[in-house]
Amino acid sequence: MTANFADRLLEKIRAKGAPICVGIDPDYERLPADITDHHRLNDANDAEAALDAVLEFCRRVIRIVAPITPAIKINSAFFERYYWEGVEGYYELVQEAADKDLVVIGDIKRGDVGHSAAMYARAHLADPQFGDLDELVAPDAVTVNSYFGLDGVKPFIDIARDDQKGVFALVRTTNESASDIQGFTNAAGLTLSEHVARQVATWAGDDGLVGSSGYSAVGAVVAAKDPESTLKLRVLMPQSIFLVPGYKTQGTTAEDVVPCFKPDGTGALITASRSVVYAYDDMKYVERYTSEWEKCIEHACKDFAGEVNGVLAGKV
Amino acid sequence: MTANFADRLLEKIRAKGAPICVGIDPDYERLPADITDHHRLNDANDAEAALDAVLEFCRRVIRIVAPITPAIKINSAFFERYYWEGVEGYYELVQEAADKDLVVIGDIKRGDVGHSAAMYARAHLADPQFGDLDELVAPDAVTVNSYFGLDGVKPFIDIARDDQKGVFALVRTTNESASDIQGFTNAAGLTLSEHVARQVATWAGDDGLVGSSGYSAVGAVVAAKDPESTLKLRVLMPQSIFLVPGYKTQGTTAEDVVPCFKPDGTGALITASRSVVYAYDDMKYVERYTSEWEKCIEHACKDFAGEVNGVLAGKV
Repeated sequence: MTANFADRLLEKIRAKGAPICVGIDPDYERLPADITDHHRLNDANDAEAALDAVLEFCRRVIRIVAPITPAIKINSAFFERYYWEGVEGYYELVQEAADKDLVVIGDIKRGDVGHSAAMYARAHLADPQFGDLDELVAPDAVTVNSYFGLDGVKPFIDIARDDQKGVFALVRTTNESASDIQGFTNAAGLTLSEHVARQVATWAGDDGLVGSSGYSAVGAVVAAKDPESTLKLRVLMPQSIFLVPGYKTQGTTAEDVVPCFKPDGTGALITASRSVVYAYDDMKYVERYTSEWEKCIEHACKDFAGEVNGVLAGKV
Repeated sequence: MTANFADRLLEKIRAKGAPICVGIDPDYERLPADITDHHRLNDANDAEAALDAVLEFCRRVIRIVAPITPAIKINSAFFERYYWEGVEGYYELVQEAADKDLVVIGDIKRGDVGHSAAMYARAHLADPQFGDLDELVAPDAVTVNSYFGLDGVKPFIDIARDDQKGVFALVRTTNESASDIQGFTNAAGLTLSEHVARQVATWAGDDGLVGSSGYSAVGAVVAAKDPESTLKLRVLMPQSIFLVPGYKTQGTTAEDVVPCFKPDGTGALITASRSVVYAYDDMKYVERYTSEWEKCIEHACKDFAGEVNGVLAGKV
């Protein structure tokens, strides 16, 4: 790993031909029957058995989408739900995705005061320094919460600089009540999201973080809402790659994501989670493949890439 | 566990005679020599050995402070740092502290959109629903990040209501750069912290959360800064217990914490972490006990209780 994170990500996007990321948020209740029906994996009330099923599903999803997507985002919450064995499973999937040469984003959304943030950064972004874990690889990048300001993010940024990793700081999230906090506006008409965006822009421009592409290892999580407000954030953070969550499921359409990109079609990574990973619940795919759930996921992932490229081609 | 969380916490405070909480943030580098010198526990470069030492230290700290403090706060970051085995260790300490009849606060600072927040809430606040983990107990309360607004906090609040647990929402943090974000001010002169405080007050007053004491299971993390701004937050959140971090180490003095309390001396839980847990590095105690580190911690914990009670007695 010798290149700046942003450069590596852009290179992977070019190689795979689509600025997309598949989000892994596995919910036991929604797993395909042929996973949960399996003898050893069939007990929702047994953490170990449920986790085995979840991990088997995720390994297969990673195998299916790896040829199509440049990046994968693994949501820690869905693994922590199975306690320490779930956390071990999370790291196993990180290895699995890294082995398949995907850019791996750990969706951990951690945030804390400096000395605690430093511990989170070591656990979740730095590759382990322990002799007994020296084969373990941490994600290429993680999501972090910006509520603490620079102190909470700096330990992650320092690792990003030293180890060629990446950070995506939360600027604007997809959920309904987000605007109750993130839409808080100052006397000059600047929203909190825009204010955080300005901070992120300062962090992103710091020494040693900007790659030859002009993008920084410090990116931003930006929900694509109305085009006008998204464009403002795009202008405020010229060096940051946007990690755009919730494609389709959280209400974001292909058109909405266009202003996340710069006119040259770079600068954003669009994430779909449930709309790809649970495509076998979508009649559009079920009608074609019936219970062949892996084919549903593969097709949905290709459709996702095609849709994003389609709107980009039309608008850029 | 049949009483409202706030009622239980206040009852424990009365029983122990001090509104204090000891924070467990163990750093291997600072452990006492007789822990790290132990044959099996002496390798900072081996995650398992380092974690063994950390856990041995924490178990002893819990034993020492349990007769003095009503509550303990365990910082997840310092355990996640040892990967899944560290997470297992975190839950072990939660059991240990619960067995000693302490109110246990899981300092996890999680925050995410609704469906992810629900997973975090199940993992960290609900007692496990899995048959193979049915003896495991989750913390009595956890800290949560408010950046997502209600959606991110609601899954935790729902568990607090159903299972008599508690939530402390981040309002104002102790770190230096906090004010860059939390001090963001609207046209009416309201800071983001005050705005979040208003939201927390609404959440706290919801049905089924307020105990017979008049306090809610939804509390707030509030750094004690200048008395005037703290008093404002106290007025804005009349039903919330304040979890006040960073006593001494993060620059907070006994006088600063007074406005976190109501005139009757209730309404706040003052947390000290490093100033108690590493008291064997403080010359004041070393001069008296030399290398008897457990006595240093015990004495520092009693001093901490005495100091907080002293300023409360003087001012209330």
